[in-house]
Amino acid sequence: MSKSKLVVTPVQSCTAAPIVREPLTAEAAGELAGVFKALSDPIRLRLLSAIASREGQEACVCDLSEGIQLSQPTISHHLKVLREAGLLDSERRASWVYYRVIPDALQRLSQVLLTESGTAAGVTA
Amino acid sequence: MSKSKLVVTPVQSCTAAPIVREPLTAEAAGELAGVFKALSDPIRLRLLSAIASREGQEACVCDLSEGIQLSQPTISHHLKVLREAGLLDSERRASWVYYRVIPDALQRLSQVLLTESGTAAGVTA
Repeated sequence: MSKSKLVVTPVQSCTAAPIVREPLTAEAAGELAGVFKALSDPIRLRLLSAIASREGQEACVCDLSEGIQLSQPTISHHLKVLREAGLLDSERRASWVYYRVIPDALQRLSQVLLTESGTAAGVTA
Repeated sequence: MSKSKLVVTPVQSCTAAPIVREPLTAEAAGELAGVFKALSDPIRLRLLSAIASREGQEACVCDLSEGIQLSQPTISHHLKVLREAGLLDSERRASWVYYRVIPDALQRLSQVLLTESGTAAGVTA
């Protein structure tokens, strides 16, 4: 089952409550699994982080290909997966597509994993 | 690359800082991807949530097989994957193995996804 192709639901549309609050329904778990699958690839995590840590949280493929030794089509493919998962937004400007992090999406996912008593404030990683 | 077998690093040993703080290194991204891979399966998410939402955040396979239509060996396999990712701990008592959520692990993962300005406090999902 873990190898099956998941239909990706953007994280904003996921119906999951924090996992400690109540057992996930099969539907919510399926939606959420698709988003985590998008994050289960080292290249995608590096791309997401490279964009998220830039000023303005925005980058085009031309910016990203400098730090990662992959072709631009391969990078574009990974960015598309992140976009389909609702983690990135994109906008074409002239001949380049710019990708921007959706902070609410990361926040939403962060929330799902949070333990009832925990807050992120004051915790250093 | 996304199909390759990842060596799983327990989340507690992941070296990743919050992804918005600085670009993830290849090493940190590889470690983190393994943990997200453990969460990229709907059954594993349901099992984790079923345990996390129980009083005491603990359950044995016998408890879990009631709500999920899978054989106990299949459930045990999925629990092992979550344990290897550092999300669950296990303890044998008599003839049953009990699984317990590691709240710090969920908290750690939640932190990695958090946006700089965001805190989990006061946000309802």
